[in-house]
Amino acid sequence: MSVEGLGRRGLALVLSSPSGAGKTSIARGLLAQEPELEMSVSVTTRPMRPGEVDGKDYYFVSQTEFDRLVAANDLLEHATVFGNSYGSPRARVEATLSAGRDVLFDIDWQGTQALSGKIKPDLVTCFILPPSIDALRQRLTTRAADSPEVIAGRMAKAASELSHFPEYDYVVVNENLDESIAQVRAILVAERRRRERVKGLVEFVRGLQGD
Amino acid sequence: MSVEGLGRRGLALVLSSPSGAGKTSIARGLLAQEPELEMSVSVTTRPMRPGEVDGKDYYFVSQTEFDRLVAANDLLEHATVFGNSYGSPRARVEATLSAGRDVLFDIDWQGTQALSGKIKPDLVTCFILPPSIDALRQRLTTRAADSPEVIAGRMAKAASELSHFPEYDYVVVNENLDESIAQVRAILVAERRRRERVKGLVEFVRGLQGD
Repeated sequence: MSVEGLGRRGLALVLSSPSGAGKTSIARGLLAQEPELEMSVSVTTRPMRPGEVDGKDYYFVSQTEFDRLVAANDLLEHATVFGNSYGSPRARVEATLSAGRDVLFDIDWQGTQALSGKIKPDLVTCFILPPSIDALRQRLTTRAADSPEVIAGRMAKAASELSHFPEYDYVVVNENLDESIAQVRAILVAERRRRERVKGLVEFVRGLQGD
Repeated sequence: MSVEGLGRRGLALVLSSPSGAGKTSIARGLLAQEPELEMSVSVTTRPMRPGEVDGKDYYFVSQTEFDRLVAANDLLEHATVFGNSYGSPRARVEATLSAGRDVLFDIDWQGTQALSGKIKPDLVTCFILPPSIDALRQRLTTRAADSPEVIAGRMAKAASELSHFPEYDYVVVNENLDESIAQVRAILVAERRRRERVKGLVEFVRGLQGD
């Protein structure tokens, strides 16, 4: 058997973080550098925001359609956050992983927990931290007109999300965007080489041994 | 607490492979790209070969001196292979790991097993495979004058060493040297970001939460 006989299942790389940690920029940079990596686009019932694109940022669906997807077992995981429902469509993810390609998830700790129950051996999870509380506050102050109460509310939400970091395999502190992208990319490259992910190794080594 | 408050213990990166898989070239390339990485230079009782440098390739010692190191518990691991003794000096490795810097080991499966009992949480192990049996045979044919018996003996030794790949965390198939160096380097970069290796995370996150 030659090197061509070696294969692998794809891996599901999850990035989670509180808003304001820069996760979306890291995901975008990673996708640009890893053209083989596919983004898992979530479905959501929340309204589309200005600048968002249906089918790119999310699939925007009605609650009825969302409930139908859940009932049909078409979502790999789903959760409700502040009254809006979010979920990861199953079919595309499973087909991509089976084809030996990797899928990137930008989901929160609830989604990660749910996913963990479904595709644990394929899952690699990474939590992104902001470098300081000042950097976090700055990124959560989206407009100069934001009231102290609005900002305090966002900080409290971030604090609650931050408490879930111990559930993740890797932690990246996003001090410098390029450095953070390089670190997440190294995680992807390394995890692909984990022995238990490489298929056909026993036969390959047997070939090297001359059997 | 700021990012400066985050620290880590160093990690012990082990590269093992049968002779002829190109491990030494990978180690050399990695050390050139990662100046912070320290090579663990083994002690051995085997005679120095032409071109080898004492204190760089190995510390060449007498059997009496080797036995003294073992008795004094100065070796982290040691093993005897074909009548020659090999071991990893303890003090330097432990000091380097404690200082948060990483140590590279070029040792065989026996050394890796012994090390695993000693510094398991700091250990990351990687097995290097040649890309084909022809490439292996070619690399083990060091001189045109090598007899078929000599080559067959080396191939049998390699086959026996290859059987230990399932004991390793990662597997790199050395088809292309630069690519293999990049993969091993990614393993190093990724493992540094493993949550359980980062010290001070709880306090750092508490700072982000405003506590």
